[in-house]
Amino acid sequence: MNAVDIIRKKRDREELSQNEIAFLVAGITDGSIPDYQISAWAMAVTLNGMSHREIADLTIAMAGSGEQADLSSISGIKVDKHSTGGVGDKTTLVVAPIVAAAGISVAKMSGRGLGHTGGTIDKLESIPGLSTGLSPQDFVDQVREIGLAVISQSGGLAPADKRLYALRDVTATVDSLPLIASSIMSKKIASGADRILLDVKCGSGAFMRTQSDAVLLAETMIDIGRQTGRRVGAIISRMEHPLGRMIGNALEVRECIDILRGRGPDDLRELCLELAAAMIYLADVEPSLNICRDRCVKLLNDGSALARFMLMIERQGGRLDLDLPGYGLPEAPLKRILQSPQSGYLVGFEAGRIGRASAMLGAGRQKKEDTIEPAAGIELMQAPGVYITRGSPIAALYSSAPTLIVQAEAILLAAFKLDVNPPVEEPLVLARLLD
Amino acid sequence: MNAVDIIRKKRDREELSQNEIAFLVAGITDGSIPDYQISAWAMAVTLNGMSHREIADLTIAMAGSGEQADLSSISGIKVDKHSTGGVGDKTTLVVAPIVAAAGISVAKMSGRGLGHTGGTIDKLESIPGLSTGLSPQDFVDQVREIGLAVISQSGGLAPADKRLYALRDVTATVDSLPLIASSIMSKKIASGADRILLDVKCGSGAFMRTQSDAVLLAETMIDIGRQTGRRVGAIISRMEHPLGRMIGNALEVRECIDILRGRGPDDLRELCLELAAAMIYLADVEPSLNICRDRCVKLLNDGSALARFMLMIERQGGRLDLDLPGYGLPEAPLKRILQSPQSGYLVGFEAGRIGRASAMLGAGRQKKEDTIEPAAGIELMQAPGVYITRGSPIAALYSSAPTLIVQAEAILLAAFKLDVNPPVEEPLVLARLLD
Repeated sequence: MNAVDIIRKKRDREELSQNEIAFLVAGITDGSIPDYQISAWAMAVTLNGMSHREIADLTIAMAGSGEQADLSSISGIKVDKHSTGGVGDKTTLVVAPIVAAAGISVAKMSGRGLGHTGGTIDKLESIPGLSTGLSPQDFVDQVREIGLAVISQSGGLAPADKRLYALRDVTATVDSLPLIASSIMSKKIASGADRILLDVKCGSGAFMRTQSDAVLLAETMIDIGRQTGRRVGAIISRMEHPLGRMIGNALEVRECIDILRGRGPDDLRELCLELAAAMIYLADVEPSLNICRDRCVKLLNDGSALARFMLMIERQGGRLDLDLPGYGLPEAPLKRILQSPQSGYLVGFEAGRIGRASAMLGAGRQKKEDTIEPAAGIELMQAPGVYITRGSPIAALYSSAPTLIVQAEAILLAAFKLDVNPPVEEPLVLARLLD
Repeated sequence: MNAVDIIRKKRDREELSQNEIAFLVAGITDGSIPDYQISAWAMAVTLNGMSHREIADLTIAMAGSGEQADLSSISGIKVDKHSTGGVGDKTTLVVAPIVAAAGISVAKMSGRGLGHTGGTIDKLESIPGLSTGLSPQDFVDQVREIGLAVISQSGGLAPADKRLYALRDVTATVDSLPLIASSIMSKKIASGADRILLDVKCGSGAFMRTQSDAVLLAETMIDIGRQTGRRVGAIISRMEHPLGRMIGNALEVRECIDILRGRGPDDLRELCLELAAAMIYLADVEPSLNICRDRCVKLLNDGSALARFMLMIERQGGRLDLDLPGYGLPEAPLKRILQSPQSGYLVGFEAGRIGRASAMLGAGRQKKEDTIEPAAGIELMQAPGVYITRGSPIAALYSSAPTLIVQAEAILLAAFKLDVNPPVEEPLVLARLLD
């Protein structure tokens, strides 16, 4: 067996055997297959696709290429969630406490942000004192004791995926359904959960632009779950405008606490309830999705979810004070209010541009090595559908550098869409794949 | 402009601009574009193709990426030829002297053999004392004085093609019409000739398996010629069985001298006349192809071509003695006659296997660094179509190592095809594209 023959088969639209995929992944992991062969193969896959069987084999091989979390000492079903990434997407910090409050263990490994989307770990780390770098033993112990832990994904998880992803990023082979699906699922499988809920975003601010592409990606990942003995479900949700009103790490944590306290914007609350209900449903503890949802509403309203969240923060060393207006989160030295240059109905803020503006203010990274500013970001002051008069405040920009604010302001203005007619309200959740 | 965007465009079946191709070739040449991006792009080209305009731009950019022969001080039209490679394909050594004897300058740069096909330079170098490493000035001077020189292709010719080819070889992107055509033509254009005749082989022993593939390749290269102001013609010839009876460097030189002396096998003589006539025709010195051919026959029969060949050999330092039975060429210490294990009509010897058997005996290389044995090779003792009785001699194997002879014998026997019926005789020349 050699790499050239494997590339040739894929080039000629032939199906690779399980052994061939294992050989390839072993060579990606130990470095014996050079970059130029991996990238030629990735391009052949991007253009010629893979069968469901090949995708599952690739996922399993990549999941097995490095460390794998052992959650066997945690009793009961462990449910994980994954979002394909959006702007202002902070649901994990609300959903995980609700699900844990329902008695289902959530042992979650999350990533950091890159480009215009944020990462749960960066958000959590904006909480003073909080650590996301738990040892495997501490991680398991915390989940056993309080039912919940969100930690930084180990660098040793799925190293084959890590090398392949870095190459895909520089060879125009990111946009490949089989490679996206296996990349996500290999890390989820290595993370050890029994059930996995996927929040697949679609729209102009997401990786998948159309609903049909998002459904196809979701179905591919559900099928990987089927072939690897893990129950996987998906919610397809819209990502045209940022989720909620806050974009930026500490700002998003603040908004999550608002939601956990029964306040905060409707769209965020709605999606959190949807995802938490689906996770509980996947865990098979309730007979119907509606009952799951009712339970989530109750856990949110009676403060159980907030209590669980605070338990986790405390346990991971974080310091918050719910009596303070800013909950003790860091605050940016500069704040600038942006006013509407015109009057009209707010269609929304274009998610991609808002993500870039927020990153510009210091909340995101262009390269992995960049540092972020926890308090930087954007607060959207108007919700889509409202009528705005010229000069009304539309957004607040938070940063520590006036020059960054000027640059971000221009991007933000371009993201801001008004119309003479009110926009048609569209549902946030487009489809549920939970069978 | 950056490499990822160029790869993405080709992935998405968009046409690259002349500037984008120039950027890519500059980056391939100076090393600023890494291997993994070049190979991803090559795979995208292999699967998505290129327009005629893109192919011409790629060819011109690669031809200009390094040294370019300056033949301007040689008066008159300079005609070059190129064969896409076959087994026993020694026509250059006969064709170039005929064309030179017709008064048309042939300033030819040739390559070495690799894999199962031989190279003109290895054949020439089997002549004791002969040098193929002439300086550019000596090369031009020799052509001006005797109308003919065949030298080793400079390592500095089309370096972009060199790097790209090395990567294609290890990423299953050799089989790409645009990349094959531009690779061949970039070196031909950098070699400086005004007119180029292509001998495009097709059949089981050639790179192009079918006539339609061979015609498509020929048409693509003719079109490159059109777009770069060089008249290019092509002969499509069959390559199922080796050309002539000799395979191996010194053996092939001996067979060429036989042809130049009016002897030797019909198929080889036939193709040499065909190619020489086409080259003269491309030079526009005769009104019709038939007249060109008559002239070639005459130049072969009256000894003019042989005289021109001997002039070149002498001028390049080679020592031959036409009065000796082996012309003073090196002879192998071991010779083994292989006998037919059965009776039947000889269909032929499968070219690919014969090439490998000959390489095994020492006549070829597996890797560029391998050394070759000038006297090693195979003499086929029967022509396709004859009836062979069991025990008749069918081939002679020449080598210096008995173990190699045993291994080559097995390959040779597998290459040897008998049938109960005589094979249908098929033409050697399948098409002429000389407009």
